[in-house]
Amino acid sequence: MFQKIVIIGGLAGGLTAASWARRTSAEVSITVVERGLEVAYSECGLPYVLSGEIGSFEQLVRYTPQEFAARYNVELLTGHIAEAIDPRQGCVEVRSASGGSRVRLYYDQLIVATGASPAMPAVAGLNLAGVFALRHLPEARTIDFYLRNNRLRSAVVVGAGWLGLEMAEVLVARGLRVTIVERTSRLAGFSGEICSAILEELTAQGVRVCFESELLGIDGIAGTVSRVSTRSGEYDADIVFLATGVRPAVELARGAGLRLGAGGAIAVNERQMTSYPDIYAAGDCSEVYHIVLNRPVYLPLGTTANKQGRVAGINAAGGRAQFRGVVGTSALKVFSLEAATTGLSLEEALQAGYRASRIVKRSISRAGYYPGAERLIVEIVYDEATGRLLGCRMCGREAVAKRIDVAAAALYAKMRVDDLLQLDLSYAPPLAPVWEALLIAARSCH
Amino acid sequence: MFQKIVIIGGLAGGLTAASWARRTSAEVSITVVERGLEVAYSECGLPYVLSGEIGSFEQLVRYTPQEFAARYNVELLTGHIAEAIDPRQGCVEVRSASGGSRVRLYYDQLIVATGASPAMPAVAGLNLAGVFALRHLPEARTIDFYLRNNRLRSAVVVGAGWLGLEMAEVLVARGLRVTIVERTSRLAGFSGEICSAILEELTAQGVRVCFESELLGIDGIAGTVSRVSTRSGEYDADIVFLATGVRPAVELARGAGLRLGAGGAIAVNERQMTSYPDIYAAGDCSEVYHIVLNRPVYLPLGTTANKQGRVAGINAAGGRAQFRGVVGTSALKVFSLEAATTGLSLEEALQAGYRASRIVKRSISRAGYYPGAERLIVEIVYDEATGRLLGCRMCGREAVAKRIDVAAAALYAKMRVDDLLQLDLSYAPPLAPVWEALLIAARSCH
Repeated sequence: MFQKIVIIGGLAGGLTAASWARRTSAEVSITVVERGLEVAYSECGLPYVLSGEIGSFEQLVRYTPQEFAARYNVELLTGHIAEAIDPRQGCVEVRSASGGSRVRLYYDQLIVATGASPAMPAVAGLNLAGVFALRHLPEARTIDFYLRNNRLRSAVVVGAGWLGLEMAEVLVARGLRVTIVERTSRLAGFSGEICSAILEELTAQGVRVCFESELLGIDGIAGTVSRVSTRSGEYDADIVFLATGVRPAVELARGAGLRLGAGGAIAVNERQMTSYPDIYAAGDCSEVYHIVLNRPVYLPLGTTANKQGRVAGINAAGGRAQFRGVVGTSALKVFSLEAATTGLSLEEALQAGYRASRIVKRSISRAGYYPGAERLIVEIVYDEATGRLLGCRMCGREAVAKRIDVAAAALYAKMRVDDLLQLDLSYAPPLAPVWEALLIAARSCH
Repeated sequence: MFQKIVIIGGLAGGLTAASWARRTSAEVSITVVERGLEVAYSECGLPYVLSGEIGSFEQLVRYTPQEFAARYNVELLTGHIAEAIDPRQGCVEVRSASGGSRVRLYYDQLIVATGASPAMPAVAGLNLAGVFALRHLPEARTIDFYLRNNRLRSAVVVGAGWLGLEMAEVLVARGLRVTIVERTSRLAGFSGEICSAILEELTAQGVRVCFESELLGIDGIAGTVSRVSTRSGEYDADIVFLATGVRPAVELARGAGLRLGAGGAIAVNERQMTSYPDIYAAGDCSEVYHIVLNRPVYLPLGTTANKQGRVAGINAAGGRAQFRGVVGTSALKVFSLEAATTGLSLEEALQAGYRASRIVKRSISRAGYYPGAERLIVEIVYDEATGRLLGCRMCGREAVAKRIDVAAAALYAKMRVDDLLQLDLSYAPPLAPVWEALLIAARSCH
């Protein structure tokens, strides 16, 4: 008898798990249950279709359900909702979204990849027409339809996280006057010089940013949104976009008694195993170990979902893989600017009990005399007690996302800033300066 | 009495040393002896002025001698030749290039930064008009003048190292038909798929590349070059550019009895100290420790010269700094292509006694659906016995030089390929794919 793997979720975590389970064993049976009708598309790509940078939603779809099922020899139940997990019986109760009776899918190994859903603020007006949150392809189609078929002039984006900034760019591209209202005084988690540089870019593109603006309510006229009230004032809005973070979708897991961990996400070990040894979790529904903080956190990101899915799939199919965790790397394009972060900010490092210090330096992306050299801001955070690097942030217009990777590797290796200074980083006048920004920052620590 | 530091050489190694000696101590006296009349310019930038990408040679000059001397409170003797070092007496014998008598400069600490000179092949015809090698600004001006004032149609570049490829690009930009003759079957040290990709780019730009073509001689008519003879055939040439590597300029050091090491360069320890404790060496005249090979090598590069100069300057001025060595990183632009390398090639790893294996993978620079995603080739070399990463090479059109840096950091930290796979590298659809090329390569190792 061959092992039977059931996977709940047909996006990054779930389908990566399915593909790696199949690569690990030709013989296991694999069934994927997905609520939606589309699978294997990039959620991260949705804003770029809405902005027009990518021509159609179809371009985000890597495989149709039929293609994926055939390629990986997987049973793919789209339009099916997993309603309960029974860990004692080892089965999942599933119902077709279009009605029909419940069926039980028995598993030897279960992978929960139920993802996350937008964390909606607790205010009135969320169900007015013109109020949106983005997560999946169907909502993106709805937003696109709404933008095409209504004469809209002003937009309010609630939340200046990375999705909020991406959506601000989308709405500018669609010709709207955009206001971002943000509870804190940060942009995408950045403070200080990098926050100022992002703000400058947003302002240059006509986006108004209101900091310290907690959302109080959304008002409408005849059922359609017209205004947003915040602690800092009221803003006209023909469309409102809520980008106030996400919550792990753990109803099923909670119902089954799986232990929940950081941020209410499913607790997992480094094999992506939950508190039940035959149940794995992967992707935005699960916590992830933070190597610099030395504890699990909730930090849902596409790359992490893919790595977790791979590890869960390999282990469920009888292989052996581990995911040691993240160092907190992410990157963002804001119009023509790139910003990237890895590790801890100064505030996070101080909160975590480090005797942390911060160095901020300005540098350039190529030799200063070479055409196209762009300014870079680099910030490193380190522990004064041990000299250990704790975090790095960068901002600029050239190869910033890939420049942060060297700091991510350094954090993984627990390097000290005096190790950074020794790094043999590439140099060629058209591609990089003799002293990389990171080295200049490291040179200034003592 | 304050310490007296004498530095021989006014380019990357020497002037970096001078600036860091001054930053380390406000009180030491610093004298720099430089043969040429110009200092503090980027040798690496010379090809880009010759190609027209940079408007003038002056743009490469960071400081005039007067500016540098004033800024760092340094005595700068340009147009002066150091003719001998007397370590017993602790002095350097110096003569003005324009004649005059020898003077003795006494030092407490000496820094030798005499650089390198082109390694000329042992063939006839080297002194024909139209035969050039490039190292310093004066030669670059001569080449520029020759290109402007002669009607040239065909050029031969001897040697397909990084300088040879850069000069081929220069000569194409100046409207010449260019042939590269190369002794081996490699381009800039790259073999296999990356060599093929570079060859394809060169060919698309009209450059002819002749491999396995050892130079036999250079022929001329009436004192001017007309033809190059190689083992693979003869090539018409109105101008010939020799890019057959460099040799450390160690005549002075040898005369003073300094121990020579790898590649005949000045042997140094990690404080850049030579076999005499009061004499340091830095830059292209000195060897460098190779962290992956675990031994000193001769690998003259601009970044290394800067790091060595900094360490020599700090130590000579009574501070304490060390340079732990290189992992062999370099990057190159070939027309619109970037190629970068770090660590060992398969051949070097096998030669060094590793049970080495190579993985080559193709990937992309952004999410596949995002406009402007460019193909990447990545190659990793690892030790099958321990799983340790030994080298990485990449080629493509977007952020390749900065993508290699993460592998350089991994080599410094002696990571295994299964560590690479754990790295938390940045992802955002416009900036990077979910699975970075390096991770895809690491995923394929077992």
